[in-house]
Amino acid sequence: MPGLDTIIRNANVVTATDKYKADIGIRDGVIQMIGTISESAESEIDAAGRMVTPGGVDGHCHLDQPMDDGSIIADDFTSGTISAACGGTTTVIPFACQVKGEGLRAAVENYHTCADGKAVIDYAFHLIVTDPTPNVLGQELPALIKDGYSHFKIYMTYDALKLRDREILDVLHLAKREGAMTMIHAENDDCIAWLTETLENAGKTAPIYHSHSRPPVVEREATHRAISLAELMDVPVLIVHVSGNEAMTQIQNAQARGIRIYGETCPQYLFLTADDLDQPGFEGAKCVCSPPPRTADDQEHIWRGIKTGVFQVFSSDHAPFRFDDDKGKKNAGTDAKFSQIPNGVPGIETRLSLLMSEGVMKGRIDVHTFVSVTSTGPAQMYGLFPRKGTIAPGSDADLVIWDTETEFTLTNERLHHNVDYTPYEGMELQAWPATVLSRGRVVAENGECMAQPGDGEFLPSDPPNPLRPQQP
Amino acid sequence: MPGLDTIIRNANVVTATDKYKADIGIRDGVIQMIGTISESAESEIDAAGRMVTPGGVDGHCHLDQPMDDGSIIADDFTSGTISAACGGTTTVIPFACQVKGEGLRAAVENYHTCADGKAVIDYAFHLIVTDPTPNVLGQELPALIKDGYSHFKIYMTYDALKLRDREILDVLHLAKREGAMTMIHAENDDCIAWLTETLENAGKTAPIYHSHSRPPVVEREATHRAISLAELMDVPVLIVHVSGNEAMTQIQNAQARGIRIYGETCPQYLFLTADDLDQPGFEGAKCVCSPPPRTADDQEHIWRGIKTGVFQVFSSDHAPFRFDDDKGKKNAGTDAKFSQIPNGVPGIETRLSLLMSEGVMKGRIDVHTFVSVTSTGPAQMYGLFPRKGTIAPGSDADLVIWDTETEFTLTNERLHHNVDYTPYEGMELQAWPATVLSRGRVVAENGECMAQPGDGEFLPSDPPNPLRPQQP
Amino acid sequence: MPGLDTIIRNANVVTATDKYKADIGIRDGVIQMIGTISESAESEIDAAGRMVTPGGVDGHCHLDQPMDDGSIIADDFTSGTISAACGGTTTVIPFACQVKGEGLRAAVENYHTCADGKAVIDYAFHLIVTDPTPNVLGQELPALIKDGYSHFKIYMTYDALKLRDREILDVLHLAKREGAMTMIHAENDDCIAWLTETLENAGKTAPIYHSHSRPPVVEREATHRAISLAELMDVPVLIVHVSGNEAMTQIQNAQARGIRIYGETCPQYLFLTADDLDQPGFEGAKCVCSPPPRTADDQEHIWRGIKTGVFQVFSSDHAPFRFDDDKGKKNAGTDAKFSQIPNGVPGIETRLSLLMSEGVMKGRIDVHTFVSVTSTGPAQMYGLFPRKGTIAPGSDADLVIWDTETEFTLTNERLHHNVDYTPYEGMELQAWPATVLSRGRVVAENGECMAQPGDGEFLPSDPPNPLRPQQP
Amino acid sequence: MPGLDTIIRNANVVTATDKYKADIGIRDGVIQMIGTISESAESEIDAAGRMVTPGGVDGHCHLDQPMDDGSIIADDFTSGTISAACGGTTTVIPFACQVKGEGLRAAVENYHTCADGKAVIDYAFHLIVTDPTPNVLGQELPALIKDGYSHFKIYMTYDALKLRDREILDVLHLAKREGAMTMIHAENDDCIAWLTETLENAGKTAPIYHSHSRPPVVEREATHRAISLAELMDVPVLIVHVSGNEAMTQIQNAQARGIRIYGETCPQYLFLTADDLDQPGFEGAKCVCSPPPRTADDQEHIWRGIKTGVFQVFSSDHAPFRFDDDKGKKNAGTDAKFSQIPNGVPGIETRLSLLMSEGVMKGRIDVHTFVSVTSTGPAQMYGLFPRKGTIAPGSDADLVIWDTETEFTLTNERLHHNVDYTPYEGMELQAWPATVLSRGRVVAENGECMAQPGDGEFLPSDPPNPLRPQQP
Repeated sequence: MPGLDTIIRNANVVTATDKYKADIGIRDGVIQMIGTISESAESEIDAAGRMVTPGGVDGHCHLDQPMDDGSIIADDFTSGTISAACGGTTTVIPFACQVKGEGLRAAVENYHTCADGKAVIDYAFHLIVTDPTPNVLGQELPALIKDGYSHFKIYMTYDALKLRDREILDVLHLAKREGAMTMIHAENDDCIAWLTETLENAGKTAPIYHSHSRPPVVEREATHRAISLAELMDVPVLIVHVSGNEAMTQIQNAQARGIRIYGETCPQYLFLTADDLDQPGFEGAKCVCSPPPRTADDQEHIWRGIKTGVFQVFSSDHAPFRFDDDKGKKNAGTDAKFSQIPNGVPGIETRLSLLMSEGVMKGRIDVHTFVSVTSTGPAQMYGLFPRKGTIAPGSDADLVIWDTETEFTLTNERLHHNVDYTPYEGMELQAWPATVLSRGRVVAENGECMAQPGDGEFLPSDPPNPLRPQQP
Repeated sequence: MPGLDTIIRNANVVTATDKYKADIGIRDGVIQMIGTISESAESEIDAAGRMVTPGGVDGHCHLDQPMDDGSIIADDFTSGTISAACGGTTTVIPFACQVKGEGLRAAVENYHTCADGKAVIDYAFHLIVTDPTPNVLGQELPALIKDGYSHFKIYMTYDALKLRDREILDVLHLAKREGAMTMIHAENDDCIAWLTETLENAGKTAPIYHSHSRPPVVEREATHRAISLAELMDVPVLIVHVSGNEAMTQIQNAQARGIRIYGETCPQYLFLTADDLDQPGFEGAKCVCSPPPRTADDQEHIWRGIKTGVFQVFSSDHAPFRFDDDKGKKNAGTDAKFSQIPNGVPGIETRLSLLMSEGVMKGRIDVHTFVSVTSTGPAQMYGLFPRKGTIAPGSDADLVIWDTETEFTLTNERLHHNVDYTPYEGMELQAWPATVLSRGRVVAENGECMAQPGDGEFLPSDPPNPLRPQQP
Repeated sequence: MPGLDTIIRNANVVTATDKYKADIGIRDGVIQMIGTISESAESEIDAAGRMVTPGGVDGHCHLDQPMDDGSIIADDFTSGTISAACGGTTTVIPFACQVKGEGLRAAVENYHTCADGKAVIDYAFHLIVTDPTPNVLGQELPALIKDGYSHFKIYMTYDALKLRDREILDVLHLAKREGAMTMIHAENDDCIAWLTETLENAGKTAPIYHSHSRPPVVEREATHRAISLAELMDVPVLIVHVSGNEAMTQIQNAQARGIRIYGETCPQYLFLTADDLDQPGFEGAKCVCSPPPRTADDQEHIWRGIKTGVFQVFSSDHAPFRFDDDKGKKNAGTDAKFSQIPNGVPGIETRLSLLMSEGVMKGRIDVHTFVSVTSTGPAQMYGLFPRKGTIAPGSDADLVIWDTETEFTLTNERLHHNVDYTPYEGMELQAWPATVLSRGRVVAENGECMAQPGDGEFLPSDPPNPLRPQQP
Repeated sequence: MPGLDTIIRNANVVTATDKYKADIGIRDGVIQMIGTISESAESEIDAAGRMVTPGGVDGHCHLDQPMDDGSIIADDFTSGTISAACGGTTTVIPFACQVKGEGLRAAVENYHTCADGKAVIDYAFHLIVTDPTPNVLGQELPALIKDGYSHFKIYMTYDALKLRDREILDVLHLAKREGAMTMIHAENDDCIAWLTETLENAGKTAPIYHSHSRPPVVEREATHRAISLAELMDVPVLIVHVSGNEAMTQIQNAQARGIRIYGETCPQYLFLTADDLDQPGFEGAKCVCSPPPRTADDQEHIWRGIKTGVFQVFSSDHAPFRFDDDKGKKNAGTDAKFSQIPNGVPGIETRLSLLMSEGVMKGRIDVHTFVSVTSTGPAQMYGLFPRKGTIAPGSDADLVIWDTETEFTLTNERLHHNVDYTPYEGMELQAWPATVLSRGRVVAENGECMAQPGDGEFLPSDPPNPLRPQQP
């Protein structure tokens, strides 16, 4: 039997369940053995005293995705995955988005072109289904699911993306038959349109009114509707980027009944509030995303949701737009109405560190929950487990060795995304990935990327397999 | 570095989170490495094609425990642990029960005398606190917690055992200060006494009236009260043997609020109903236990509770009384009033097989949930994790190699407890532990015990550490 | 001061709150005094020993309403109001329905033409808004509300009637500004269409599949959506014809939060189940209505909802189609698919007697609740109170003198509607209106109509004023 | 037929349901007719433009009740009923309290001695059952219920008063059999004792710590327990003086399930908070009552509970202790520990005015809800309806003619109780009873008492008959 390529020594290994001290032996990018390893390897890394967790899986991020308003997603597969890797994420799942009137297969092929040779870490694709024609439902999507694209997102809002309930039912019916996972952006589009028109007619166009145009009841309504449609079809769905207590309660109640409804939340709902949109001038545009950040009280509820298992997935929803850029947040100028501001905040690099610092190290959640929502959960949800999402024999050696002893102030300078701000500027953090391995290779060290574009591979997805079919 | 004693080859390892194929290398009873093992060992066991799970931890069973009504618990540490081992359980946690008016330390010492040299598998002790005197609270209990008895049970019913609310508060206050886990038997004693008297005055004395004397609202009330007292003290508690929807809903609601309330349920609440107490003659006495089995609808709710994470622990509550025995169920004769029948059903050997067959193999729960509630959960809850409760480097090599291909009919003849019946007689099952290892030794094979009394060791408990501090 | 025209002597007067013995003195159709009346009148009616309640207000019935499928509503204002009067109802509120593409004022004028000179009892009009154009919202509807049409219905299903969410918001916004009450038929149209197509493609076309095409979750979803839209607008709405527990729970929860959501239910949800649609041949068509009757368990929940105040209004939703008639239930033949069967059941005459017999006399509800949901509640809800809906000085002398001592078997022969069946054929009842007065005139006696077409007057509605702004 | 004694002209009569303009004709203290009265009477009162409501029924007040700590209830039947009458209350129901070890009949007889010839308005008696001996349960209480004492209070706290669960069951069993209404003071006594001891051991003895010793969970627990015991017995109960959201939610949930659980709240939970106990020196003692006032958020929930029907009864819980008095709040001196301060606040005179001003006139509740909770509800609950609690023929002419046009500042000087403070000093109010009639006599006018001690009569109570058997 050939020898090991790399050994991580004396790791304090942490998985979604376990915590133990061991050496990790790696060969050909895969974990070969875990325990007390007597042999040696050419590359040995001493992790003594350091926590080692599975590399992060970012189940929701936007890279090199075409926008229909002329704005530009600031990160492509190179800058986006470098940023991810430096933040401890070793798998990203961005979106291959169908253009209405065109096919899904074409979207996938185009998106591979965007990704090929550019990523420094591994990636899978979510699909976005915007036009569920008979051909899409009958031919393309079933074939794509078999080909490794077993999860897709649908929208209940945005003119260019949204599906009607009838279309959602068609899609869910297919998801059930083919064993796919459906992610749903749940906001009531008609409400948003009505409120937006009403606000703008009243001259209320500043960024803060973005949050007025999408109040919690709008998200709650669509969340309950999505749950109801899924319940009618008896199919699991994941509600993405849940922002506050009202929508969360709908999910929690459905889970308590034993329905297979899953939930995702994001850093912006733990660390931002609507007040962050209410800044002088156009500054608030930096934090315009949908659903909008809510209140301090909602933040506490979202923490509770992570702690109590409502959320299986903690993603970045990295949707990077440069602030001081006429293809970014200022796409429609600095006098833009809130409805013209590109939606999204950057966060692919800060996701893990924020949750480790503010969640684990401040005692709000335990470290196993951290691993579960940042890595194991999304890997299971999107058919990448156990290749990704855990530390176990046979799994890819995607690992984060943590430095939890060095406090620092988060600044955008530290980050590697192609965005000129971070919404979390100035936060004091206590944890950062010291060394990040992807398939046994060191891809980031001390906050600098060690990998090359093209090192990352495409990951075909198996059928989804969430840890517990139903969460409480 | 010394070699391995034993290697389990080609195991389909299953933990609360992971599922992978690997060899498991064991030395000195402890897992040394997991993965592709190139060296060899004197003892090698081929598990090819078979699922290997962590040995069961039975967090609630009664062995050699003195009864105050003259009845006799049928199993001592030898017959009880042999039965446990044959059923795949490698750790039992029976109860050292304080006698009112006496001390707790004495109870522990007496109980060690009962256990010493008799167990074939490892064991820890729960304490039962029946008399929380200043000395107990101020001296004995804090010292015992430090000495490895970090979890205790208290009762809200039974004259010989019950505590008043004020005493419960004193105990919970201590549990918080000392970091112990409190298990609570939650039934309203006054209601039971009132109903029992009323039923018996009306001549309703048959076994079925046992269930009338303890309706769901009686359990629900005490459960909410226990939760409230724990909430007042801000301390975690575990509600034991939850029987149906009403009590379970109280727990689930508390968990949803983020309160650290844990729940245990048992096979009798999945596989028996009150109808099983309503049999000709005295037969119903076989299924008299408290709380009583409920309805078919409640069974579905209990399954839902396991699936959705309300229950962290699935125990046997093995309380073995021989049926045809004047120190057993017939302690007060066959004309006994229901209130005179010793409470309890046997189940230490059937617990895992029932849940694997009816739960996992019939698709009601996934196998990770099985591992979680039968092994990982109780090990964490009672401070035995990660020594027990998982398959990981450094953990004890307590393992079950499963046979899930041989259907059989469950009969009491197959079982090794010292009881002349099983409530599950005649059930068709599909899974049974083929080989069971305790600290690397085979303790059961093909349903027969391979170990000797005295092979089992006492396990001092660390502070409790449930996986998630708060479950949903 | 002129004398009294009529005195009801020795009445056991019952209102939504009060119960007392008194004479009722009437002049010019209006109650002048209540109490011990020493003067006499030309017409005196002795009600000794009999309960006298306010005349029924049927807040939901369909008379002479054009159908878009060629079927014919069997009752016009004459047969419909005769049937109503004989059953104790003294006010009906049928629907003036806007035809899409046409105006609302025209619908009202046309409907007055249908009603003029034909009704034997008083009537108000609900509007149905199907096409909320700028002219409708900006001109017609505000004017109509001021003119006495202060309540209207909107639909979330039926192609000819349904509004999109955006249109619903526009209508609710107007309702808030103008102080109108909005009734909502809440079923998710897309779900119904999807299920109908799926069922019919599978050859499942019999009447019973009507209920499969509209399962409870479809009603629950739309109910929550309607509540959410109303909550967003901060405006009261009434959810009509609630059929079972799932939708009802949404309403109850909203009420518990203090939101002004009102509920209506109907006899068909207390006395029919889906099994009534599952009869040999085409018989099931008799009970096809939307939402469909549910289960026996749902019936109990609906009773609970009446008892606990979830429902302010108990209406007939009288939608009369003759069974053996090619313009009735057999409009599309006896081989019709379920989706082609005209929706509705008759019930304008049986509403009060059914609820008095099965509700009050069997102890399920008290008599004040009966008065509240059959008369006071709808009168308040639709701006007719206190002219209608109570027994008080100044109110119209609309009264029912009850015979609750004569048991009888309900048959269609007894009824005066123009329908050849009643879904309640064969029920044994214990209560029937002995004498019914409308504005002091006897309009029905011993089950026969004493009034003439044209005796009934149109009632302009005041602004709605439900008893409690928010019900629990 | 003899003529009328008194006529109230042009009243805007308001009942729990109705609102109309009428004359009210009175003879022999009873309402004879309502409507347009052509005859005249010796005494005529013009109420033109003024609202006339049923006289208030104060369902919870303490007058001349012996205390076991040497303190003295400041009001006897004369000062207490004068104060009540001046505030618009025409019926009071204070408590005849059993002394442990003595009989109930003796308590009633003693209490009649206290009341005889002293009250200016009518009164009934609640009993307080503190010692449910076989004789009490088997003889005295059944006889007393038949004699017109059909409602009694039991306590779950206070050493001198509290019952154990078993005793509560006995009492509820009797209440069911005899048709009585049980009021329950629901707080967990053991928790209070534990917290009190802990706080006082820590030197936390100031009045504010009274609220720390009785946190919401303590009330919630006992409320759920009381509900559970009532549910077990299938008997209605009323939870008195509900202070905040936690206990209220228990009641609301039980009501939603259709259980006959009723609720009472008081002005102190709408207008005071725990902050009122946290004043310099001993001032906080003025607001020490149990349960203690909670938070501003709880106040909003209590308003919601009144509005949505959770509460059928709004009482004063007038428990008057003089502040600057060594038999009053300073019974144990001004250095008293909080647990030594007599519990209670005065409020018999301010109850109606506070709720009319802050509730009705500020739009929080409608006027029918006001009538319902201040008069109709308690009259029904305690078997005094329809003699008291409404304006109807045959009812006692107990009436309040309101002045809602004169704003004033509430001061203790204005009040007639024998207490040297009001907790509501300085509030700006907009409504006060201008004229109050008891059985047709003017008992208060312009805030001054017009009646004589002895004018009030004892009211035997019928069986309780709450308006709706189950409230939502």
